[in-house]
Amino acid sequence: MEKYLVVHGPNLNLLGMREPGIYGTMTLQQINEILLAEAAKHNVKLDILQSNNEGEIIDFLHGNRDVDGIIINPAAYSHYSIAIHDAIKAVAIPTVEVHLSNIHSREEFRAKSVTASVCIGQISGFGYYSYILGLYALIQHNRS
Amino acid sequence: MEKYLVVHGPNLNLLGMREPGIYGTMTLQQINEILLAEAAKHNVKLDILQSNNEGEIIDFLHGNRDVDGIIINPAAYSHYSIAIHDAIKAVAIPTVEVHLSNIHSREEFRAKSVTASVCIGQISGFGYYSYILGLYALIQHNRS
Amino acid sequence: MEKYLVVHGPNLNLLGMREPGIYGTMTLQQINEILLAEAAKHNVKLDILQSNNEGEIIDFLHGNRDVDGIIINPAAYSHYSIAIHDAIKAVAIPTVEVHLSNIHSREEFRAKSVTASVCIGQISGFGYYSYILGLYALIQHNRS
Amino acid sequence: MEKYLVVHGPNLNLLGMREPGIYGTMTLQQINEILLAEAAKHNVKLDILQSNNEGEIIDFLHGNRDVDGIIINPAAYSHYSIAIHDAIKAVAIPTVEVHLSNIHSREEFRAKSVTASVCIGQISGFGYYSYILGLYALIQHNRS
Amino acid sequence: MEKYLVVHGPNLNLLGMREPGIYGTMTLQQINEILLAEAAKHNVKLDILQSNNEGEIIDFLHGNRDVDGIIINPAAYSHYSIAIHDAIKAVAIPTVEVHLSNIHSREEFRAKSVTASVCIGQISGFGYYSYILGLYALIQHNRS
Amino acid sequence: MEKYLVVHGPNLNLLGMREPGIYGTMTLQQINEILLAEAAKHNVKLDILQSNNEGEIIDFLHGNRDVDGIIINPAAYSHYSIAIHDAIKAVAIPTVEVHLSNIHSREEFRAKSVTASVCIGQISGFGYYSYILGLYALIQHNRS
Amino acid sequence: MEKYLVVHGPNLNLLGMREPGIYGTMTLQQINEILLAEAAKHNVKLDILQSNNEGEIIDFLHGNRDVDGIIINPAAYSHYSIAIHDAIKAVAIPTVEVHLSNIHSREEFRAKSVTASVCIGQISGFGYYSYILGLYALIQHNRS
Amino acid sequence: MEKYLVVHGPNLNLLGMREPGIYGTMTLQQINEILLAEAAKHNVKLDILQSNNEGEIIDFLHGNRDVDGIIINPAAYSHYSIAIHDAIKAVAIPTVEVHLSNIHSREEFRAKSVTASVCIGQISGFGYYSYILGLYALIQHNRS
Amino acid sequence: MEKYLVVHGPNLNLLGMREPGIYGTMTLQQINEILLAEAAKHNVKLDILQSNNEGEIIDFLHGNRDVDGIIINPAAYSHYSIAIHDAIKAVAIPTVEVHLSNIHSREEFRAKSVTASVCIGQISGFGYYSYILGLYALIQHNRS
Amino acid sequence: MEKYLVVHGPNLNLLGMREPGIYGTMTLQQINEILLAEAAKHNVKLDILQSNNEGEIIDFLHGNRDVDGIIINPAAYSHYSIAIHDAIKAVAIPTVEVHLSNIHSREEFRAKSVTASVCIGQISGFGYYSYILGLYALIQHNRS
Amino acid sequence: MEKYLVVHGPNLNLLGMREPGIYGTMTLQQINEILLAEAAKHNVKLDILQSNNEGEIIDFLHGNRDVDGIIINPAAYSHYSIAIHDAIKAVAIPTVEVHLSNIHSREEFRAKSVTASVCIGQISGFGYYSYILGLYALIQHNRS
Amino acid sequence: MEKYLVVHGPNLNLLGMREPGIYGTMTLQQINEILLAEAAKHNVKLDILQSNNEGEIIDFLHGNRDVDGIIINPAAYSHYSIAIHDAIKAVAIPTVEVHLSNIHSREEFRAKSVTASVCIGQISGFGYYSYILGLYALIQHNRS
Repeated sequence: MEKYLVVHGPNLNLLGMREPGIYGTMTLQQINEILLAEAAKHNVKLDILQSNNEGEIIDFLHGNRDVDGIIINPAAYSHYSIAIHDAIKAVAIPTVEVHLSNIHSREEFRAKSVTASVCIGQISGFGYYSYILGLYALIQHNRS
Repeated sequence: MEKYLVVHGPNLNLLGMREPGIYGTMTLQQINEILLAEAAKHNVKLDILQSNNEGEIIDFLHGNRDVDGIIINPAAYSHYSIAIHDAIKAVAIPTVEVHLSNIHSREEFRAKSVTASVCIGQISGFGYYSYILGLYALIQHNRS
Repeated sequence: MEKYLVVHGPNLNLLGMREPGIYGTMTLQQINEILLAEAAKHNVKLDILQSNNEGEIIDFLHGNRDVDGIIINPAAYSHYSIAIHDAIKAVAIPTVEVHLSNIHSREEFRAKSVTASVCIGQISGFGYYSYILGLYALIQHNRS
Repeated sequence: MEKYLVVHGPNLNLLGMREPGIYGTMTLQQINEILLAEAAKHNVKLDILQSNNEGEIIDFLHGNRDVDGIIINPAAYSHYSIAIHDAIKAVAIPTVEVHLSNIHSREEFRAKSVTASVCIGQISGFGYYSYILGLYALIQHNRS
Repeated sequence: MEKYLVVHGPNLNLLGMREPGIYGTMTLQQINEILLAEAAKHNVKLDILQSNNEGEIIDFLHGNRDVDGIIINPAAYSHYSIAIHDAIKAVAIPTVEVHLSNIHSREEFRAKSVTASVCIGQISGFGYYSYILGLYALIQHNRS
Repeated sequence: MEKYLVVHGPNLNLLGMREPGIYGTMTLQQINEILLAEAAKHNVKLDILQSNNEGEIIDFLHGNRDVDGIIINPAAYSHYSIAIHDAIKAVAIPTVEVHLSNIHSREEFRAKSVTASVCIGQISGFGYYSYILGLYALIQHNRS
Repeated sequence: MEKYLVVHGPNLNLLGMREPGIYGTMTLQQINEILLAEAAKHNVKLDILQSNNEGEIIDFLHGNRDVDGIIINPAAYSHYSIAIHDAIKAVAIPTVEVHLSNIHSREEFRAKSVTASVCIGQISGFGYYSYILGLYALIQHNRS
Repeated sequence: MEKYLVVHGPNLNLLGMREPGIYGTMTLQQINEILLAEAAKHNVKLDILQSNNEGEIIDFLHGNRDVDGIIINPAAYSHYSIAIHDAIKAVAIPTVEVHLSNIHSREEFRAKSVTASVCIGQISGFGYYSYILGLYALIQHNRS
Repeated sequence: MEKYLVVHGPNLNLLGMREPGIYGTMTLQQINEILLAEAAKHNVKLDILQSNNEGEIIDFLHGNRDVDGIIINPAAYSHYSIAIHDAIKAVAIPTVEVHLSNIHSREEFRAKSVTASVCIGQISGFGYYSYILGLYALIQHNRS
Repeated sequence: MEKYLVVHGPNLNLLGMREPGIYGTMTLQQINEILLAEAAKHNVKLDILQSNNEGEIIDFLHGNRDVDGIIINPAAYSHYSIAIHDAIKAVAIPTVEVHLSNIHSREEFRAKSVTASVCIGQISGFGYYSYILGLYALIQHNRS
Repeated sequence: MEKYLVVHGPNLNLLGMREPGIYGTMTLQQINEILLAEAAKHNVKLDILQSNNEGEIIDFLHGNRDVDGIIINPAAYSHYSIAIHDAIKAVAIPTVEVHLSNIHSREEFRAKSVTASVCIGQISGFGYYSYILGLYALIQHNRS
Repeated sequence: MEKYLVVHGPNLNLLGMREPGIYGTMTLQQINEILLAEAAKHNVKLDILQSNNEGEIIDFLHGNRDVDGIIINPAAYSHYSIAIHDAIKAVAIPTVEVHLSNIHSREEFRAKSVTASVCIGQISGFGYYSYILGLYALIQHNRS
């Protein structure tokens, strides 16, 4: 059975409460439940972390180098954390970057991701469904 | 039955022959066949265009304003065609932008898309599977 | 009797349907009728083209080098088409650039026109009436 | 009877004497006479100011907030006077920006206007006739 | 008894009438009355100027070099008046820059102040209360 | 009784010891005591955090979403922490940004704050008294 | 016998009529005749296209992938057509970029070519003779 | 007998009192006396203006178009007043720009002059003696 | 006996496993052993921290203000952590910045260090030996 | 008989030894021999200099102002030597700039030439054959 | 008797022959003779160098550290020679930078001088007379 | 016995006399003596050059291609000499760049080195000891 990490970056713990016009009304727990159910259907085990802390995210990636894939929503850290960029590159595990909102139709500074360049690819704009698509992308990448 | 447009931008007719290290060895026809099969499974009809011509792409979008969604890979046009940006905005149909390669890990000028900001979202980096994910994203967007 | 070209650039065929908040509810056909009537009053014959295709616009300019003036709304091409810039310069016919919306109060990239520098002048922001003012400007330029 | 302000910015008092290759040989008084005559034909009263002084221009706009429109040629101030930008926005009267020369075919710094974004539109390049077109544009805007 | 200057820059005379969504509904006279009352409570005499004119503001600062402090809202001039910057530096009187609105959440060009670097500090975003805070800041600076 | 958070960002624990020429000789404990006393006078309870850790600051903001206001000195994080920007926006509590030194008269990179745009306003340059002014600003904001 | 493509980009059909001060008085037909004669002397067959249309140029390159070399003057497209850049790269045929005028001594935007980086080299400034030099360069490249 | 204008820009009235480390201890009156004496020796009459007001400086230049030369220290206005640039160009009188301090060894924004390009030349860094050198330069220019 | 801190920034715990082509095959533990041995030879005691966490690094510097020197490899944080810059400046202990790889021959963003300006100097490019050179540099600095 | 200068800039003396992947295996002496032979065939005498020294190159150009043409490969100096730019302009002899490698497909800083704008044209990318093409270009320029 | 160095930078040996429209028709020898005569009148001895070589200019400055002043026209080196900047700073002798033409009214790159910031001041635009003014400026600087 | 080159760039001959606050009081001869002694201890022979001349430095590198290493302090040339960059790359000998002062804590333009990217590494900020560290780095590089 494959195992993937799911990493939710800063402020995502507030989902459902925070700017629902942009991020929707679903809570992080609800997203996690849907993700876990979908993953189970495809024989994937998920290990999930939400953290507001750059270093903690890096530690989590380092500490789980035996997994088969990573779905990461680095949130605000996407735009400046060269340290997370280095961490993804260092662990060398297939990684998909996802975003709830379309980063190309918000503030200028959100269009640029410093972490995406070390991922397989990036999916942005489909709400919680970006995670589901990220799951499919990893499965496809690993099994074909 | 829903109907979606699939638009393949410039140079994509050469797929399979062009830089396989970046774009893979699958031809455009093979991608289209997989896409048609997958769409059929989900009760979606696809109308497909490949064009190297900016104006022809815009005409195709204008001429099919009754469809339920658009999957577009604007390829090189992503990076400067304000005219396609305007066309997508003008037809006001749910659109997903897809890219075969990860636009964030290539030349600097490919990281910026002027068309993505008028789409629901963007998916990049998963080879032909970016189109399949784009199909799922549109279905999810239209049916939920 | 003088003869002028009127060139409507990309996406203007959708006028009336496209973002009426910005571009108004009048269709291109209605604008053309008003323009033709006004031109007739001033003894000017108009030859009108709408095209979404950069090359077709250039061909139209090249193929009508015997006219007395050009009213052009290059729309999105204003912002990057050095080829249309070169075409206007090459035919050396008095040209007025017009825009329906005020290009200075929209996205940053719309404030810059690469085509205006080879025109007599530019008129932007007055809806369909920008074309009428462009007509007056050409008449004034040619007859005084 | 409608009343419009006409504002001539810095150095325009020297018209006819200053760089006739760029600005023409007509004096400011001649332009004003033509403008007054044309306005009278359309039942518009004009109140005219020429000033080289940024603050005086702002005072003039503030002191006449009961007018129906403003035709302004901010000249050099177009390119840096955020204060005039704020003044036009503050009085909230329909305003048209005009320029004698085509600001897009001169020095780079003249192509950018910080005042145009708070106007209805901008007309540039038609010599004294830019003012006449500005008059027409305001009438059209107010009466239709 | 200490004496402070209060300088209101361009367009502030229209307060209450101008864009109340941004600047509030209080008039400049009302702000001045509140300020005078508050200053009196703290044994401070105020000398107040509103001017739309860069040179007049500089003259006012030069002509009152015997005061104990300056509260200045340079408004639009904050963003480009190196002359006012030089004037504040030249008179060498403790100065506080205040803004009604939060200059960091508006247009990009308003976030930069060329005058703030020669002041003790800057207070922005609290409506008329920015002036009161500026008054407190000067008193604290002078008396401790 | 209202309750406000006070957040001191990185390196502020060294106040009094660190570059007294810029930051003064008062220690953080002394500032806190003055702040607590002043708050008490106005019937405000303060909950204070000093942290050098970006994630910890975000957690503190998230964990206290029932407060009535936030006074934050993000120190170095002001200049690049989009994550704290997002956190302030997400908790949607009235927030005032304060700085001990005048950020406009130091290194270029300190003049720009990425966090101020989601606050009510910003106060910078008045030493420990910036906090007192921030307290007044919040009280004024909440009670009027 | 080798076969080369010769591609003349937008506005070159007007040669001889367009700005002779910059481009000379020779027509495109005359240039083609000289080129064909010179090529014949070296046992090279030429297939020539002039097009103002970006897509048509790309189609021509795609449709002739069996040739031994390409001489291309992309004219205005040199400066922004990433699509032609991609097309040249995709067909992987030895290509030489030529320009009639010296692109380094004209407007700033003409100094930069986005197409030259995927060619063997670039020759600019020698009028019609740039094509002849391009022919020599291809022959030399292919035969040595 | 020749007549020259001498224009002292904003804040120069404070000379001797303002930042003596940069501008010296001589007052403007002392400089004027030295200048008048030196000019008299060379049979030049001087007409002197100090103004903090951009518009007033322009008016002064316009109102004295019969002079033989201009010595101008635009001070802060050097760095942004396109209006004074236009005025110098418009009056078309030989002009020399002078600065007391070396504008190349102060803040970055002082190194750039928008007014110098329409002068014969620029002299900066020699205190009051920059004016004397400017006087010599004009005499030399006019008499040789 | 002198005491120095050694700080290893984010991702350095993966040394030996991470991109050995760039960072070599030596593990962090091996580097630490060599460093401890070399330090002992020179009568220096080392206190070593590896952390992926910006705040933890700052806390470590603050908590050891009695040491005689700091050898720091801020890794990715070098390029954006103004907070670590401030921390080094605040503790005012002689600090040497070291890098395993030559930061000038990698990605553009790695060439710039925001932390180096508050160190005595920087050593980059010599693998683990950069630390040894850093040790020598500190000893030389402290003992001569 | 015509006489041309051939100037080889810095590091070209190492040809054949230096990065043969980029510059080929031919030595400078071999190139010179081929060039001399080819020139002789066309009745051209060549005077050749290789120098690593900017000033020496300028002296050589100054000292040979009687020649009929210059073929120059300024190598690294192309990208920053305004002094050589000035020298070519000053001697006013027809000059062709050549480069062995394609300057558009290497480091960003090599794409820009400050010397090309004062030459007739530029040829880059054809190895030693760039010099031969440059020779042809000069002959063509001088004899037609 | 004082002694000054006069340094003429690259290409100035061609004066009189080079672009007389910009630099005048006087030769360098004529300028030197006028300068020597004028210096003698003021009891100043001149030591003159013209060199096209950056290193030679530096050596000349280093080798004459006993002089009382330097008049330098670094010509093209003004715009990029940090080495000459360092040399002027290192010898710490009063230096005046002069230019024949007005560097503010030519190409953009000539407006910036990297050497002027370490001089007393800069004089540009007065032809050979810039040197005379530079001589006066040094005398004034040294004797008052 | 190994042999290394030591290259001291422009103005370093003035060490001890030039800005001792930045560069220290040691002369270049003293540094050379210390270096020679230290090198002898490690069985390394040094060949030393100081030159203010870019071309001479390049010639020296070219002329000594049989050495085992290079220690170079390019001083001001570090920031713009692409020619020295090319020379180091061309000779392909292990090179270490050293700087006396910390280039990251001085003027912005000194932070960027165009020569460092072709060296093994860079050492800056430790006065004469930077050379000693450079010697150790080369020995370590060559012998391990």
